[in-house]
Amino acid sequence: MFFASDNSGPVPPQVLEALARANEGHVAGYGADELTLSVAQRLRDLFEAPEAAVYLVPTGTAANVLSLACLCPPFATVFCSPTAHIHEDECNAPEFFTGGAKLTLVGDSDRMTPETLRAAIEGEETRGVHGPKRGPVSITQITERGNVYSMDELHALTSVAKEYGLPVHLDGARFANAAVKLGVTPAEMSWKAGVDICVFGGTKNGLMGVEAVLIFDSEKAEEFEYRRKRGSLLFSKHRYLAAQMDAYLSDDLWHDLAGRANARCDQLVQGLQGAGLRVLNETHGNMVFFEMSRGAHKAVMAQGADYHLFDTPEGPDDETAVARLVCDWSLSPEQVAQFLDLVRATA
Amino acid sequence: MFFASDNSGPVPPQVLEALARANEGHVAGYGADELTLSVAQRLRDLFEAPEAAVYLVPTGTAANVLSLACLCPPFATVFCSPTAHIHEDECNAPEFFTGGAKLTLVGDSDRMTPETLRAAIEGEETRGVHGPKRGPVSITQITERGNVYSMDELHALTSVAKEYGLPVHLDGARFANAAVKLGVTPAEMSWKAGVDICVFGGTKNGLMGVEAVLIFDSEKAEEFEYRRKRGSLLFSKHRYLAAQMDAYLSDDLWHDLAGRANARCDQLVQGLQGAGLRVLNETHGNMVFFEMSRGAHKAVMAQGADYHLFDTPEGPDDETAVARLVCDWSLSPEQVAQFLDLVRATA
Amino acid sequence: MFFASDNSGPVPPQVLEALARANEGHVAGYGADELTLSVAQRLRDLFEAPEAAVYLVPTGTAANVLSLACLCPPFATVFCSPTAHIHEDECNAPEFFTGGAKLTLVGDSDRMTPETLRAAIEGEETRGVHGPKRGPVSITQITERGNVYSMDELHALTSVAKEYGLPVHLDGARFANAAVKLGVTPAEMSWKAGVDICVFGGTKNGLMGVEAVLIFDSEKAEEFEYRRKRGSLLFSKHRYLAAQMDAYLSDDLWHDLAGRANARCDQLVQGLQGAGLRVLNETHGNMVFFEMSRGAHKAVMAQGADYHLFDTPEGPDDETAVARLVCDWSLSPEQVAQFLDLVRATA
Amino acid sequence: MFFASDNSGPVPPQVLEALARANEGHVAGYGADELTLSVAQRLRDLFEAPEAAVYLVPTGTAANVLSLACLCPPFATVFCSPTAHIHEDECNAPEFFTGGAKLTLVGDSDRMTPETLRAAIEGEETRGVHGPKRGPVSITQITERGNVYSMDELHALTSVAKEYGLPVHLDGARFANAAVKLGVTPAEMSWKAGVDICVFGGTKNGLMGVEAVLIFDSEKAEEFEYRRKRGSLLFSKHRYLAAQMDAYLSDDLWHDLAGRANARCDQLVQGLQGAGLRVLNETHGNMVFFEMSRGAHKAVMAQGADYHLFDTPEGPDDETAVARLVCDWSLSPEQVAQFLDLVRATA
Repeated sequence: MFFASDNSGPVPPQVLEALARANEGHVAGYGADELTLSVAQRLRDLFEAPEAAVYLVPTGTAANVLSLACLCPPFATVFCSPTAHIHEDECNAPEFFTGGAKLTLVGDSDRMTPETLRAAIEGEETRGVHGPKRGPVSITQITERGNVYSMDELHALTSVAKEYGLPVHLDGARFANAAVKLGVTPAEMSWKAGVDICVFGGTKNGLMGVEAVLIFDSEKAEEFEYRRKRGSLLFSKHRYLAAQMDAYLSDDLWHDLAGRANARCDQLVQGLQGAGLRVLNETHGNMVFFEMSRGAHKAVMAQGADYHLFDTPEGPDDETAVARLVCDWSLSPEQVAQFLDLVRATA
Repeated sequence: MFFASDNSGPVPPQVLEALARANEGHVAGYGADELTLSVAQRLRDLFEAPEAAVYLVPTGTAANVLSLACLCPPFATVFCSPTAHIHEDECNAPEFFTGGAKLTLVGDSDRMTPETLRAAIEGEETRGVHGPKRGPVSITQITERGNVYSMDELHALTSVAKEYGLPVHLDGARFANAAVKLGVTPAEMSWKAGVDICVFGGTKNGLMGVEAVLIFDSEKAEEFEYRRKRGSLLFSKHRYLAAQMDAYLSDDLWHDLAGRANARCDQLVQGLQGAGLRVLNETHGNMVFFEMSRGAHKAVMAQGADYHLFDTPEGPDDETAVARLVCDWSLSPEQVAQFLDLVRATA
Repeated sequence: MFFASDNSGPVPPQVLEALARANEGHVAGYGADELTLSVAQRLRDLFEAPEAAVYLVPTGTAANVLSLACLCPPFATVFCSPTAHIHEDECNAPEFFTGGAKLTLVGDSDRMTPETLRAAIEGEETRGVHGPKRGPVSITQITERGNVYSMDELHALTSVAKEYGLPVHLDGARFANAAVKLGVTPAEMSWKAGVDICVFGGTKNGLMGVEAVLIFDSEKAEEFEYRRKRGSLLFSKHRYLAAQMDAYLSDDLWHDLAGRANARCDQLVQGLQGAGLRVLNETHGNMVFFEMSRGAHKAVMAQGADYHLFDTPEGPDDETAVARLVCDWSLSPEQVAQFLDLVRATA
Repeated sequence: MFFASDNSGPVPPQVLEALARANEGHVAGYGADELTLSVAQRLRDLFEAPEAAVYLVPTGTAANVLSLACLCPPFATVFCSPTAHIHEDECNAPEFFTGGAKLTLVGDSDRMTPETLRAAIEGEETRGVHGPKRGPVSITQITERGNVYSMDELHALTSVAKEYGLPVHLDGARFANAAVKLGVTPAEMSWKAGVDICVFGGTKNGLMGVEAVLIFDSEKAEEFEYRRKRGSLLFSKHRYLAAQMDAYLSDDLWHDLAGRANARCDQLVQGLQGAGLRVLNETHGNMVFFEMSRGAHKAVMAQGADYHLFDTPEGPDDETAVARLVCDWSLSPEQVAQFLDLVRATA
């Protein structure tokens, strides 16, 4: 009953098998091996983007901040949600990799809207050089509060960005879960929706540590390569990143794994709502935020459920507390059912 | 007959087995899992440094530049050899991670000496704040030209650093090969020799991509952790880094792999010298630099040997050209013998 | 009738006279001249801080960001008001000079309170290395919305900072106006109130471009000097900065100039309130924010008053709009009276 | 007899008069005042560059590093002489403002040659992303060892840069002294000679602290403005920078002052050579480096001459030591003659 994070489960056997397959003989380093080249091509095919530049990096933070550094000069600002991973969970990495850019927080919810985004953009550059220049818009799909932007919402946000001539970065750490939820293709949820640089996450969806970055305007490709190297993020034995991504792309594994995680989340939401509990994120993918008394949470945890209380982890037992549950591909329906039984017995 | 690099061979089966073993169930992320904690303790034991802070990072560049960032303020300078990896092969990553420090090149050889180091240190700070403040001394063991510093040489360099109150960083991408060559323990070649932060390389010696950083003054530990995270270098699924290092530390695998590579190098050196060819690095570990006519090199390469000419790869065929051969653990004695046969038939 | 800013008026004749006096013969550069040394001592005397390190820099932004860089590592965050100059008016200079630190905005008013400051501090570091480390608290006295913190308020804020072991920076671009308003000494409003690094502004109070930075913990002195030089902010002909500050310190000129500006502001406030208009900042120094219909503002401006509408400069004429008026030392009572006449005739 | 630096003398009366003239009434801040605008136009006229973007900054280091930051991405390298001010005297400011770029030292003399420059450029990028990308070429005119590049030499250097598509920065802290020496116009020594960004120094030639930056490709203008502001280098009371430059441009004051300094230097060189002493820099402007025994130097200094020994300030009295003498506009022929008398009596 582990729901604390989707970075805590095992990887599927296909990943280990791919690593073993790749582990033959001597090959060129630093991404010049055939496996890396073929994986890049497969990603271009998957995204229907024959001209895209494609890179593999080991962490989601790396994927985000290298992308932002290519889009945001140091005297500009990135527009993002106040709950964005780049703001809350990357310990100033965006500021570091951009050389000192700022993040402008848009609205007060995990979901930016065209209105809040426009207001934030309008708020900058009203003072000329005294404030930062307007920089990229960064969208997190799925948001850090578990909501999946609809395709209409995505288009509306990127339209505002385009109106001001601003590029768009998509933090797709949970890209697969969102695409499965929406029933759309990777192309539809990226460049066809106005995204300029897209992070196609693998780590939270079953890989050991690989994210792909797709740069649809390949003029930025050279810069990305230099920034990746000087960011100490270019792997010499690149085939072991490529092998994982190769497994991910084979037999739609990425889609299959996300589908499993999302299905567990659906099961959770139905069970929780069926028990009369309030779920906060209606448009969920593989995360659910729900309310229950802190005492009930403690009781459920004491019986083996592993998850986090949110925002106010401490307080009286009879106070309502929000919990975050995240499903990874490896959870079984039985584990979810066992958890729901516990909740029903406690709540 | 692949001698182009020690980052191009496969990993030994123990590494894949360790990954498979680690791939069970849900565990805490970001290095809080038991395997990571136990590996850190094993590294402390190996280095006889119970108080050391120990971290795993995925690349040698990351290990170097995070270490330097903890030792060098942005207004200071790092003293290193002009052939140091941090100067020649890290695309400004040291400048980036330190926030803009400079590298002061010591002497004109791959090996710093107490005299050249002292002269370089004396050369800085003579202008007060107009030049950078003196910062750490960075020693590369094995050097990028294939030489292993003797223990006396190491002590002599760190003594000069200590005389000026400067901390010492050891770039040990090939730490294992050097320790095997010198027949010394990790403790002897690090803190007992005056090293403050030591990189214990795994990637060039058989791992997929893991380096350990040992910080003997654990006051720097917190800073390193923050810098690793903001450098986008903290792995969420940390167990897969730890598993590799676990295999490396078991049954002295690190020592065994380095011994194999060094033995192949000895075989090469003896063969080349036996063929009357000049070897440039007398104090070799797992790399050899040797001279032969460019035409002969081409002929040998045309028959399947894979390696690089150095410094002047282009030029007339009858000119002497220097080749760099690097041995990794996976080379067989037969492959080396086959290469030597080719050389003898050609030179 | 110029109220647009306090950086737009002339300098008093004493400043020009001091420049002329300093313009004799050859003197040492880079702050080693006697005038600079004597001015530093006079500042130590004024602040009753015999051990303080004292530096002159040419802009308020320079004074702020060099100070913050000495107090805030790149992986930490600065706590400040959302209206702070360092956030709104320095185009990412704090992020730049700190090497990529973040600013955490405290509350939603120009004035931080112990409660909002505590909440902001508590909000950071709850995620370990995933968020930034807690860094300095930066207080702006007078705030950018024209309010002077009382001594009790200052003490309450620095007490919260001290409780968490955080250093305190005072952005004193309008230090003199605040000290005059409160009737306190520079020592009372700085180190005696818990401030670690204090900016004693000159530029907005009658100098051409000089700010003094007082570092009460002189351990940071060396770092400041290196950071000033590498920030390209060390003047070679330092005597011309020192001469201005020398004039400022003579015959309490700094106090006299601030007294004049504050008196004009008092005159404004009384006149505006007497006309039935709403003044937003009760605890004013030399700035006043007041409400009037946009149409009335336009009419007053059309007759020669120079000032800015705030936040919503555009809109219908009958809407209430906030104006910012800033008084510098050179305004005459007659100019203020003339402005008030215009307002009364229009409002 | 002050020859220690050209930043130690007084400013000419015209500068003080211009400051007094500018000190009238309220004017717009941050460079939007009429005086600044007119000075910018006068600089465009002087440089025959109607499209150039022109900015004033307070220090030579600021002028250099803001210019380089506009020309050099953080993953690139600047080509410069090993004696360049940006390398030896700016305490890592170029590394800081570029965000971590490297400086590649060209040859081993103060003067780059087409051959050494080409060799340095060829040496970079041979390793792909492992080394930095090739960045701008920075030329110092007059060099830090007192030599003036001829127009042919300048053209030859910029031709090499253009061949590789690299932009050219001219560190013209002593631009006026060089132009006077060569008898060329500012246009001839800048854009007509292939310079992309030119620093037109004022501080070493009689101003209190003002340098002009001329950006001939005005596409970089916006970036420069943002970088100046975030570098904390935008003066609010900009008129006082502009006033100095206004005086400098009136009645060819810049040319006149440089002519005076150069004439004193000619007088020095003739006198020293006449006394049988060796002058090291044949192509001098306003600096001379000459050899004499350390004992003789000491004796001369003891009688009131103020200057620096170079490279080896300490050592036995009978050893030859190199002295650097710098002439500023305010030196009188009598002072130089007095110094030469001392030397002749001592050497």
